[in-house]
Amino acid sequence: MGELPDKRTAFIEWYLEVIEAAQLTDKRYPVKGMNVWTPYGFRARRCLDAVLIREIEATGSEAVEFPALIPSTEFAKEAEHIQGFNAQVYWVTKGGLAELDVPLVLRPTSETAMYPIFSLWVRSHRDLPLNVYQIVNTFRYETKTTRPFLRVREIHFFEEHTCQVNEDAATARVASNLDAFAKMAAALDLPYLPVRRPEWDKFAGAFYSIALDIPVGEGRTLQIGSIHHYRENFSRPYGIQYEASDGSTHFAHQTTFGLSERLLGAVVAVHGDAKGVVFPSAIAPHQIVIVPIPAAAGTADPGAMAEGIASRLRQGGRRVHVDATDARPGAKYYFWELRGAPLRLEIGRREAEQGTVSATDRLGRKSTFPLEHVEVEVDRRLADFDRALMEQATERFRASFAYADSLAELAGSTQIRVVRWCGGEPCGRKIEEAIDGSVLGIPEGPLPLEPRAPGPCIACASIEGGAWALASRPL
Amino acid sequence: MGELPDKRTAFIEWYLEVIEAAQLTDKRYPVKGMNVWTPYGFRARRCLDAVLIREIEATGSEAVEFPALIPSTEFAKEAEHIQGFNAQVYWVTKGGLAELDVPLVLRPTSETAMYPIFSLWVRSHRDLPLNVYQIVNTFRYETKTTRPFLRVREIHFFEEHTCQVNEDAATARVASNLDAFAKMAAALDLPYLPVRRPEWDKFAGAFYSIALDIPVGEGRTLQIGSIHHYRENFSRPYGIQYEASDGSTHFAHQTTFGLSERLLGAVVAVHGDAKGVVFPSAIAPHQIVIVPIPAAAGTADPGAMAEGIASRLRQGGRRVHVDATDARPGAKYYFWELRGAPLRLEIGRREAEQGTVSATDRLGRKSTFPLEHVEVEVDRRLADFDRALMEQATERFRASFAYADSLAELAGSTQIRVVRWCGGEPCGRKIEEAIDGSVLGIPEGPLPLEPRAPGPCIACASIEGGAWALASRPL
Repeated sequence: MGELPDKRTAFIEWYLEVIEAAQLTDKRYPVKGMNVWTPYGFRARRCLDAVLIREIEATGSEAVEFPALIPSTEFAKEAEHIQGFNAQVYWVTKGGLAELDVPLVLRPTSETAMYPIFSLWVRSHRDLPLNVYQIVNTFRYETKTTRPFLRVREIHFFEEHTCQVNEDAATARVASNLDAFAKMAAALDLPYLPVRRPEWDKFAGAFYSIALDIPVGEGRTLQIGSIHHYRENFSRPYGIQYEASDGSTHFAHQTTFGLSERLLGAVVAVHGDAKGVVFPSAIAPHQIVIVPIPAAAGTADPGAMAEGIASRLRQGGRRVHVDATDARPGAKYYFWELRGAPLRLEIGRREAEQGTVSATDRLGRKSTFPLEHVEVEVDRRLADFDRALMEQATERFRASFAYADSLAELAGSTQIRVVRWCGGEPCGRKIEEAIDGSVLGIPEGPLPLEPRAPGPCIACASIEGGAWALASRPL
Repeated sequence: MGELPDKRTAFIEWYLEVIEAAQLTDKRYPVKGMNVWTPYGFRARRCLDAVLIREIEATGSEAVEFPALIPSTEFAKEAEHIQGFNAQVYWVTKGGLAELDVPLVLRPTSETAMYPIFSLWVRSHRDLPLNVYQIVNTFRYETKTTRPFLRVREIHFFEEHTCQVNEDAATARVASNLDAFAKMAAALDLPYLPVRRPEWDKFAGAFYSIALDIPVGEGRTLQIGSIHHYRENFSRPYGIQYEASDGSTHFAHQTTFGLSERLLGAVVAVHGDAKGVVFPSAIAPHQIVIVPIPAAAGTADPGAMAEGIASRLRQGGRRVHVDATDARPGAKYYFWELRGAPLRLEIGRREAEQGTVSATDRLGRKSTFPLEHVEVEVDRRLADFDRALMEQATERFRASFAYADSLAELAGSTQIRVVRWCGGEPCGRKIEEAIDGSVLGIPEGPLPLEPRAPGPCIACASIEGGAWALASRPL
């Protein structure tokens, strides 16, 4: 492989080449937008899932799994929802040699699979809240250009679905999901912004949608997840109601929280560099790669020493790989930089004889320490590495935003623009036209910029009831 | 819930009622043969998967994931295979609003998804062996009666696919899979027999198939998995060939190893009793359930003590549940027996004051021990429980087999019959007719009966080249 394309000037080319060179995916599978999870990519995915599972289960959500096939009759029950997904679903029309009486939809998302059953599970206020999630694959007949992890037709999907006693409880669940996501993002060293989408861009059937957006350079953004408040929009057509302690019956208020393999694409997009992928230690397939450097005969054996260190490190649950192939050390360094291993340990004759270890982290910082304290020294370096990765990402994140005071400033913007917006759709559409992109919506929480005094709407110059909105070109 | 049906005389009724009462599944989903994994059932499944992953990865197999949709053009490449599955596949014929140019098959198994990519991964003898597995859902348009876990239309599936340098290496891989399965079955306390299926009952496209069978009472058997040797049957149509070190090219020899959620059904079927499910500790959703018994005011607090014990036990990775609901203790005992928790700890006022713990395992054995040593005492009891469960299962397993010397003895048999068979298909068919079931095939390894001297074929009386075969009524 030659040099990678320049990430800053040719992001997509860089991205496509780096994920393939690092062997995270094989996109030669003969169905467009459906890719193979290779052994290395699957390891990263498993670690990513472990982070999601840990944080969502800490909030009391329980894992379930619903079938992948949904009867078209159930799918059709919520009008906005089916309208939103109709052009995107795969239809199973034949089973064995015969046409099916009721065609089945391959789930694009699971509201319509789960909610008929929720109506059986939820009877009394004592059954609430119902907080369940599943990690499954979903299917969307995507018409836009597909890109591994970022836009695919078979999506590795995390979806939480909840039922709450009323609107306030559902609003509180949204807040709890935002907290859980903050912890997930921290584990991935990913700065992001939660943004409440404008009406015309919310999820099909939602009351409101909060998207989780990250900048990916050049004024572009990537939506890496979303949290939706449904109010009673689904509980009514699916009949999810409960009896309160006073005997009255009510429809549940519902929320959902969705994430996908895009998170893995985001990790590559945000942290990757000219040398390849950079994995935060939480999801690195191998957190530590040990390279033994062949020694002259008769001296201490770096290979055996490498194995000994690996086995000590594995005891604490660390993911360690010993690269004992017969490639040259330089080629191994290059290979593991490309694949994003956070920490590399080198064991040569000198190290073997002196009882020391040489370490280089994926940000290029070198050090040496006594073998005796390998566990604590490795843990300290991994923590340092994650801290530095987060700092670097945060600095770039902040530099991605800029205020704009006129529609003219939006044209060809290479930053995410923060604009004053009255909230009306006509003005929103003018802003979208000016930036040749989208109004992401209103951020939940503080902006990553110095605060400014309110001004007039950038489109209509109205000065009442406006808010700071974000506009960008979504990837 | 009233009493469960009698397992010995009404096995299927007992099975269907117990899995539902124990809340392992919800079968009210509106597609026949597709059921919901409830929170409790999903926990068991996750533990089961962990056992499979641990043992298969110990053999050097790596996790991957291939797409769920297979182009009909790839699916059609191996003639026997497509013939074997054609009547069982779900067809995706429409994407969005349009008919697909190439219809897609929802994977019934993944040979035809993986092997076009294997032909790209395998180039040189250095790429071999290729040992990969995936845990995914597969889909079969089942025409027989469906039963949760035992025969479903969306199957939670474990499938290993390997490429080897030649037939001997593939045969060795089959042996290694048999070893791995022995460890998996030991973790589940499941006695079983590996049986080489007769020609007419092997996997579609295989050279030979070894099934993993267990007795489930009344002369019935359940196939809980299978291992197949493919020779070059798939590598030729899919072009999986490699260059040997001498420059010559060869087709790989392939094997597969398949297991499914049937293992969970088997655990219920084999260990369950009149009180409900019995989980071996390896896959019990909660290995230990702690029941605090409300105390009179002013005395030590059993609730706080229960939480303290739970948190100590969780530190070693044990799965512990504290049942702090306000149901009566007796109702809790009944509930956790139904759900199969291996060990129940009771903490009442006496226990709280004396610093002791009362334990009852799922086989009904009671004991008391000092709180001080709770970790070691609990571990000892779980190990004892598993040993006793395996002994009980082994005793029943042995009692399930009996020799038969004439076709007449086979009619209405309530045991698995061991018969002398010449190996010919006409005689095999006569045996199947006589037992109103199947010739399972020839066991790999010793019979679970006292050895006997060879005799003539039970059907044709030929005395040459025969072997002991098993005949039963598969569930």
